Amino acid sequence: MAQMNYLTACTFDFGALAQLPKVLKGLGVTRPFVVTDPGLKANGLLDALLQALSEPPAGVYSDTPGNPTEAAAAKAAADYRGAGADGIVALGGGSSMDLAKAVGLMVTHEGPYERYGGTQRGARFVNAIPPLVAVPTTAGTGSEVSVGFVLILDNGRKETFVSPHFIPKAAICDPELTLGLPPLLTAATGMDAMTHCIEAVLTPVVHPPAEAIGLDGAERAWKWLPLAVADGGNRDARWHMMMASFQGALAFVKGLGVVHSLSHALGRVSELKLHHGTLNAVILPHSLAMIAGHAEEKFARIRRALGLPANADLAAEISAFNKRIGLPHSLSVMGVTEAHWPSAREYALSDIATASNAIPFDGEKFDELFRRAL
Amino acid sequence: MAQMNYLTACTFDFGALAQLPKVLKGLGVTRPFVVTDPGLKANGLLDALLQALSEPPAGVYSDTPGNPTEAAAAKAAADYRGAGADGIVALGGGSSMDLAKAVGLMVTHEGPYERYGGTQRGARFVNAIPPLVAVPTTAGTGSEVSVGFVLILDNGRKETFVSPHFIPKAAICDPELTLGLPPLLTAATGMDAMTHCIEAVLTPVVHPPAEAIGLDGAERAWKWLPLAVADGGNRDARWHMMMASFQGALAFVKGLGVVHSLSHALGRVSELKLHHGTLNAVILPHSLAMIAGHAEEKFARIRRALGLPANADLAAEISAFNKRIGLPHSLSVMGVTEAHWPSAREYALSDIATASNAIPFDGEKFDELFRRAL
Repeated sequence: MAQMNYLTACTFDFGALAQLPKVLKGLGVTRPFVVTDPGLKANGLLDALLQALSEPPAGVYSDTPGNPTEAAAAKAAADYRGAGADGIVALGGGSSMDLAKAVGLMVTHEGPYERYGGTQRGARFVNAIPPLVAVPTTAGTGSEVSVGFVLILDNGRKETFVSPHFIPKAAICDPELTLGLPPLLTAATGMDAMTHCIEAVLTPVVHPPAEAIGLDGAERAWKWLPLAVADGGNRDARWHMMMASFQGALAFVKGLGVVHSLSHALGRVSELKLHHGTLNAVILPHSLAMIAGHAEEKFARIRRALGLPANADLAAEISAFNKRIGLPHSLSVMGVTEAHWPSAREYALSDIATASNAIPFDGEKFDELFRRAL
Repeated sequence: MAQMNYLTACTFDFGALAQLPKVLKGLGVTRPFVVTDPGLKANGLLDALLQALSEPPAGVYSDTPGNPTEAAAAKAAADYRGAGADGIVALGGGSSMDLAKAVGLMVTHEGPYERYGGTQRGARFVNAIPPLVAVPTTAGTGSEVSVGFVLILDNGRKETFVSPHFIPKAAICDPELTLGLPPLLTAATGMDAMTHCIEAVLTPVVHPPAEAIGLDGAERAWKWLPLAVADGGNRDARWHMMMASFQGALAFVKGLGVVHSLSHALGRVSELKLHHGTLNAVILPHSLAMIAGHAEEKFARIRRALGLPANADLAAEISAFNKRIGLPHSLSVMGVTEAHWPSAREYALSDIATASNAIPFDGEKFDELFRRAL
């Protein structure tokens, strides 16, 4: 039974940030609380957002860590309550948007917060959170339209939380905010979007609208990501990459696959601090090589979308694409070793994305994927 | 500024009707009121729906006219109130779904109802209506996910009402319910879906996710509609045509074009009782012939989606497709004459779809389109 939900409202274009007061008003928010990170405070984007607001916000939390923690969320939630805020504006990449969702959960739900997590089937206990407006500053994560967030709990676990209540009530996608992204981060976040699109198309879950959006997003990223990497000031390229990111998240309501499972598993290795998009980029060709021959119709549609010949080797094409945009070609280069595998293996197997992969994956298949990508 | 909203929850597959009690429960509806038409009462589909409900509904209105009127909506609204209902189930094609939306408006808003219409910019005054679950029995209109409905008011005007509040809270798309559709109605409603997809792709309004869905829906209808017409019992064809219909409506959040403007205008000629989908099918090739050369990139994408050669004449291809599925090739054959044009012309010009057409259309352009299609 196909279940197809879209609960998204997005204002998208250069200059969209100016619509923020109107969007907040439409949601009945009069005292917004802004969640962002130190980098955006330093580079002026927080100032740009504050200028776009017609009045000063109720409060600002700008200490979002790279990987959001329960402690940071609790601090921000206390600030939110102290400020008497009635809604949240998340400014940033996946980290700020995830932390903002966690703040929304905390200010409306009693702890302990483990019980709301995906491993506890916690969606049952999640009710409405305050109106959340997401303003992404990277083009890749798609958290601005996604149902989930990831939080490192006080107990040390990295937990995924999923509920329709976590979909931001509105997204403001302004490519202007991505003009300053350096080439490597542009490439890495862009490949996150590309991987969302391709894995979402490949999962056997039936959702033709999401699949069509994923194919279009992949075609878009294939054309525009090299241009955005080569010239960060290329406004068309920035527009299209923000669109590909948005489309990737609309597509992955279908589900994702083992690239994300392995990427999440290795992303937990705290001493390496690996970037999620870069991990996806490195692993994707190897997953495709293992799926090849088992999803021919889907592969044909992806080749057509990317404008490749009917007999093109998709895995090799993605590898060459990674090289062209300056991304590493192996996990070893990123610092991963065989020693990291035993603990990551179990996490990859139990990741929610494993169940929706194009082909069934067991421990041995993951061993092979890890070996190939290493 | 692109505004992209998706507020749809759809359960889709053979047997989806059995999910109705669960869907109603999820929406908090304990006393549903069913809106349908005499044909579905006669052919057993209303009985099938009543059997799917775990308990008898609060009430049933089965007198929906082919073109819903304010008087019929008022009668059904009175029945709804009398039954103490707390939600609506619409069973049928566009007429039943439109009437159900009108009932929802009437039981929660004070008259006169003209003020809520599109020509009065009435969306400003529209608030929440009772939860509405749409169960389509044709594959074409897509009203199950659309924001609007059309109602003939007591004052004689045919008015379009548009608000996000009119999007059904849930759609239950069960292709089983379309297995009995005769070939001509299958072809005509199917071309309604095809026209939604193609006109939505062609409008210059920026909404890439909707455009991708429209291209996929067109590809799907192109492949499966002839099979559904040739063999109404082809379950795969019925599944895909219901999906193409759903996708058409997701696509036309972008807007439509002059095929719909002219189709609406001629659909008002009450003595002819012309079918909306058939009108669309007949007019579409002529609109495409007039747009050709002015939207080459879009035409190329449509040709690619349909699997046509890069130099294919899209208008001629659609004409041949109409012929193949047994639809008429001209308005004259349907009974339209030059005498119908003067009054229809003005309505076509002011139709909301004219503003979003692929190329600007004035009265002379409409004269040409009418002449070509006649």
